[in-house]
Amino acid sequence: MPPLEGETATTTHHSNAGNNGGIDGNKSRVTVVGSGSWGSVAAKLIASNILNITSFHDELKMWVFEETLQSGEKLTDAINRTNENVKYLPGIKLGNNVVADPDLDNAVKDANMLVFVTPHQFIDHICKSLVGKLRSDVEAISLIKGMEVKIEGPCLISTFISEQLGINCSVLMGANLANEIAEEKFSEATVGYRDNREIAEQWVQLFSTPYFMVTPVKDVEGVELCGTLKNVVAIAAGFVDGLAMGNNTKAAIMRLGLREMRDFSKLLFSSVEDNTFYESCGVADVITTCFGGRNRKVAEAFAKNGGKRSFDELEVEILQGQKLQGVSTAREVYEVLRHQGWLESFPLFATVHEICISHLPPSAIVNYSKRKPILPLSEVSAH
Amino acid sequence: MPPLEGETATTTHHSNAGNNGGIDGNKSRVTVVGSGSWGSVAAKLIASNILNITSFHDELKMWVFEETLQSGEKLTDAINRTNENVKYLPGIKLGNNVVADPDLDNAVKDANMLVFVTPHQFIDHICKSLVGKLRSDVEAISLIKGMEVKIEGPCLISTFISEQLGINCSVLMGANLANEIAEEKFSEATVGYRDNREIAEQWVQLFSTPYFMVTPVKDVEGVELCGTLKNVVAIAAGFVDGLAMGNNTKAAIMRLGLREMRDFSKLLFSSVEDNTFYESCGVADVITTCFGGRNRKVAEAFAKNGGKRSFDELEVEILQGQKLQGVSTAREVYEVLRHQGWLESFPLFATVHEICISHLPPSAIVNYSKRKPILPLSEVSAH
Repeated sequence: MPPLEGETATTTHHSNAGNNGGIDGNKSRVTVVGSGSWGSVAAKLIASNILNITSFHDELKMWVFEETLQSGEKLTDAINRTNENVKYLPGIKLGNNVVADPDLDNAVKDANMLVFVTPHQFIDHICKSLVGKLRSDVEAISLIKGMEVKIEGPCLISTFISEQLGINCSVLMGANLANEIAEEKFSEATVGYRDNREIAEQWVQLFSTPYFMVTPVKDVEGVELCGTLKNVVAIAAGFVDGLAMGNNTKAAIMRLGLREMRDFSKLLFSSVEDNTFYESCGVADVITTCFGGRNRKVAEAFAKNGGKRSFDELEVEILQGQKLQGVSTAREVYEVLRHQGWLESFPLFATVHEICISHLPPSAIVNYSKRKPILPLSEVSAH
Repeated sequence: MPPLEGETATTTHHSNAGNNGGIDGNKSRVTVVGSGSWGSVAAKLIASNILNITSFHDELKMWVFEETLQSGEKLTDAINRTNENVKYLPGIKLGNNVVADPDLDNAVKDANMLVFVTPHQFIDHICKSLVGKLRSDVEAISLIKGMEVKIEGPCLISTFISEQLGINCSVLMGANLANEIAEEKFSEATVGYRDNREIAEQWVQLFSTPYFMVTPVKDVEGVELCGTLKNVVAIAAGFVDGLAMGNNTKAAIMRLGLREMRDFSKLLFSSVEDNTFYESCGVADVITTCFGGRNRKVAEAFAKNGGKRSFDELEVEILQGQKLQGVSTAREVYEVLRHQGWLESFPLFATVHEICISHLPPSAIVNYSKRKPILPLSEVSAH
């Protein structure tokens, strides 16, 4: 019988699982950098686990961008007093071993495991301010979605963190909404790592709970790209919803989208693995995003209006301040496809952008007969 | 740049695409064996295509299991008079080159391309009656879902046809509901073929239209197994719906199910390819079946009732005569897993069956912590 490919989740806790343990036998220390809803859920997951792993210090630091609440209390004080993130994840106990700290330098200085989970627009500033202030043996993981896909290549946030700070950075992505995990509803995630399987196992151990299954995959680029490219597929799915085309059509569009995510990622990074797209970060996140999510919602409204009201206008009306990412990612991806001569191999990605900018009507999302047939990419690259 | 794996759809029509064209320069002739709703849609697709392919005879024969309509007219006469299958696909013109024939021997005798699309329980009888009555150069394709998964191996319907009739048999599976394709809503399918790519291209050519995209995959076992195993995943998805666990959880369960479909198929047939499960027959059909479909629906009702009303009872009440397949497939798969010692590697498949027979509550569908962690199958096979 052949051994199968793919890697499997480790849900058991080993107390000495090859942990990089800190200097002089000190215990590992974790800091979560960020305290939005997802950061708070990450803190809750990790806080419950480190109490059961003897190689980890019991305390979990969480860096909080300080705010003053309407009551006049500081957010960090409120979190430390109530053990809840009263602003971004109210009603959920984080664990009494979570300590909120408004001082970034102080929050990270003892940590050898750093979890980055800030809005993507803050990471540049945060990294710059952390240069030279970290332990030499520190490992990082990024939960941040929102890279730009530039013509010269996608700006992976994990790569940015690695380069700015001179440290190794894994990623955690997947089909997970903070509120549902906070309520301990079953879901999953994928850890993408670069080389060191032991480090990946540690991250798996830190995040896994019976209701949150984490699988390590040696493909940091593939895993991180999923978190960005899925938003383009969600726009396509929203068009199908707006045109009331039914589940068969939607399933076909989601599948074509997943395939283009895979093929595009493989063209950008030859190290990307096919099987990554079977993980939570791939197929499961595509399903979640194409049935819920803001990109789908605004695209549905766009198609219902026959493309006559712009995405910008609908975004303001429907999302009330939240921002769409899929439309700008679709534009960036389109620029890469055009620049590389790959447009014909990615009819769904190309069509999404052309609908967004009103060069095609929303119904074009299911009309590929006017495009040339999809070619094997080997042929495209020979053009 | 690396050439990517996977195969791509051929949607253009070539008039001489390596067609096995019949003896003495005769044109190819196609017969559809079956005339339910899916058979009628298959006839409609093929009938429109053969008119545009010079190497094919214009006429398409469709074998119809003769019935007398309430009006007293024979079904074949009604189809030939109105050009519609008035009983199984009313309101849809099949193409005036479709000729319904109640005589099976007569319908198939000149054909060199046979499309099998009967209910699965009829195929045994049909094959037996066709022995010795086919052209020697005939190629077949099966659109039939519903194999049994026996301990000695799954009874692939394509293999059964091949062995009974001594002919090659491909399969066509995918996320497609007859009525939606009949209305020309965009969808897809996958042709699974054994060795001969030219034959696969011919089937693709016969079925493809601008609204029906067909992709050939050299993996007849993987493609056909998808059409059966997806029903087990749909039962799992129905439990999640019945327990109102939300989209994240459902996406996770669908993903785990897709992965078990892939891994189970690979253990049964070493020739099965990972990428088959990215095709329409895999991920897209899982999505369609887990959001629509009768297996999902009855499983949802089962979970809502806390497992207190049996599947048999709910099936009668909800489906009114239609039959569920997922529950019996789950039992058959469970028997194989137990027999082979693979139960621990397939926690979702195992749990579905144990819920169906009330050994576990429906909520167990998201509770894998009491099962042992999922092991790499290489370890399982060494047990």
